[in-house]
Amino acid sequence: MRVSTEDVVSSQDLGSKDLPPIVPVDRSLKAALRARVDGKAKPPGSLGRIEELAVRLGLMCGRLDPQMQRVVLLVFAGDHGLTEEGVSRYPAAVTATMVATFLSGRASINAFAAATGVDIRIVDAGVAIDLPPHPNLTDAKIRHGTRNAAREPALTPEEVGDALARGRDIAAAAITAGADAIAIGEMGIGNTAAAALIAHRLAPAPLDDCVGAGAGQDEAGMARKRAAIARAAARSGATAPRDVLAEFGGCEIAMMAGAVLGAAALRRPVLVDGFIASAAALAAIRLAPAAHDYCVFAHRSAERGHARLLQALDATPLLDLDMRLGEGTGAVLAAPLLRAAARLLTDVADLSEVVPTAPPP
Amino acid sequence: MRVSTEDVVSSQDLGSKDLPPIVPVDRSLKAALRARVDGKAKPPGSLGRIEELAVRLGLMCGRLDPQMQRVVLLVFAGDHGLTEEGVSRYPAAVTATMVATFLSGRASINAFAAATGVDIRIVDAGVAIDLPPHPNLTDAKIRHGTRNAAREPALTPEEVGDALARGRDIAAAAITAGADAIAIGEMGIGNTAAAALIAHRLAPAPLDDCVGAGAGQDEAGMARKRAAIARAAARSGATAPRDVLAEFGGCEIAMMAGAVLGAAALRRPVLVDGFIASAAALAAIRLAPAAHDYCVFAHRSAERGHARLLQALDATPLLDLDMRLGEGTGAVLAAPLLRAAARLLTDVADLSEVVPTAPPP
Repeated sequence: MRVSTEDVVSSQDLGSKDLPPIVPVDRSLKAALRARVDGKAKPPGSLGRIEELAVRLGLMCGRLDPQMQRVVLLVFAGDHGLTEEGVSRYPAAVTATMVATFLSGRASINAFAAATGVDIRIVDAGVAIDLPPHPNLTDAKIRHGTRNAAREPALTPEEVGDALARGRDIAAAAITAGADAIAIGEMGIGNTAAAALIAHRLAPAPLDDCVGAGAGQDEAGMARKRAAIARAAARSGATAPRDVLAEFGGCEIAMMAGAVLGAAALRRPVLVDGFIASAAALAAIRLAPAAHDYCVFAHRSAERGHARLLQALDATPLLDLDMRLGEGTGAVLAAPLLRAAARLLTDVADLSEVVPTAPPP
Repeated sequence: MRVSTEDVVSSQDLGSKDLPPIVPVDRSLKAALRARVDGKAKPPGSLGRIEELAVRLGLMCGRLDPQMQRVVLLVFAGDHGLTEEGVSRYPAAVTATMVATFLSGRASINAFAAATGVDIRIVDAGVAIDLPPHPNLTDAKIRHGTRNAAREPALTPEEVGDALARGRDIAAAAITAGADAIAIGEMGIGNTAAAALIAHRLAPAPLDDCVGAGAGQDEAGMARKRAAIARAAARSGATAPRDVLAEFGGCEIAMMAGAVLGAAALRRPVLVDGFIASAAALAAIRLAPAAHDYCVFAHRSAERGHARLLQALDATPLLDLDMRLGEGTGAVLAAPLLRAAARLLTDVADLSEVVPTAPPP
């Protein structure tokens, strides 16, 4: 695979020859969608951001009657060599433990997905240990955890290319199997450190603004995390998206970026979870700017770096619930809003159809 | 029925002899609920406001494992004599038209309820015309629209008492029939004017801060609305909750207040929609302060007066989507958050149950 620091990703680059190229939404449809929303039996503008979302969903799908009932969350899991530097309060083994918890149906994301009617698929993008097969687990392992980015590139360019391609294919498969939209979430001890480095280089933003407490860190832990991240940043000046993903990782972040590209190629919305998923979306958008049109940012994470990422993405998330768990928990909570917005277009009567039952007094 | 401007509402006052009195939640359960949430397999605090909501739902229901799957929205409809003064851009007949649209399943609230799995029941609290029977319509009509509050009291004290009692009974019936929580929404041309007067007297807040554009008003319309509201306010100095409801109306607002009291008496959560539903909740809370413990404020409305109401209610709504339609649209969008919070308590493994699949590296 040819790896370029300049080229916009094409389907061919990613080995997904059946996927169309990513094209921006057809903005000529916007006036018709806006008119359709404004013609509904309600005061104009009274559904605020749900109206805007309805127009966006129609544009993404290229139709006046988008369907959003079936949302599938893809949870990408991967480990990070940076954990050797003590960037997380949790041991790296927790990544695999939480994957097992997802598969047993007893993690927060399972509860939230059950509450919102979202299907979940777990993807092993790069967990450090071999995982036993499970019907709900896709084995897309790029490697057994990334290399330690404080000392060397986390991934090779080939590994980044593989991760992008597999993410793209996994998203495309979910859509082909019937998903109206996908959502992306992740699990990976240490991945707020990698996402901070990605945000720093791709937003771009000062490193200090991008580093937060992740799963929770005390003062000493934060000092270790900042120092490790600073060493990684000092080691490479990369700013091109593929290079940044290679230098800092991780497998699950690159694969989420691929999933964004896959959904965008098929003109389907991607519900983007919090800080780490947004870093992946930013990488995807830097590779293929038109992918931006297909991203719906689900929630404002309490993780420090998210504000800068959202700024760079020109995004105002739908929800703001002071959450910072990841796993896709924020993304699935926004799924009902997607469905409501689509149903505004498809289910609600036009003002002209509503016949008064009595003459005005 | 004895009508008092001072007494806290008791079940007996409202003619609902089978309902227990409204009691505050048992705060002694809070530590156990907080420990349960903190013991889940996730970083402490990482689910932010959903964790707070989980604790509140447990307190309301008085148990560590509340169920929130079945949410029933009650949409109360009523007309307002104040429309004679030109307070709304829409003719009063639109109230009945929209009720017919709700019953035909083609209004915004039907679309949103379908998107979120919420059941709807429509209540004729005081629509100006007689409505044909419909299996999904509860006839609880207090009168054919309120009197014109700019000239005379909108309701008699007896009518207010009836509306409170019927709302309370309707909520209790929904809960007895299996609702885990109720949501309250409304339809009533002119009711932002009534709600503004209620907010002004019960928050209390300067009248100017309480008056907004409602369903949409141009400059001349706003001048008419402000003048009519000022005449109503000048006509009566009422500040006691029942008196305020009688002076300014409306049937659907008083009945929503009753529904809050009914749910609170049965220790079930009430999802409160936007500006008008919040005015009703404030009236309920002024009548029975303990009812506050059972209210969940769903969304921040774009209607001007809502900020003051939320301040008086010491409430930070779950959603902020620039919506101002009413009908319960904001309330139902928050239903999945209620379900997710409850499932956090019931479905998620404890940290102690999660066994690492590999030793830490």
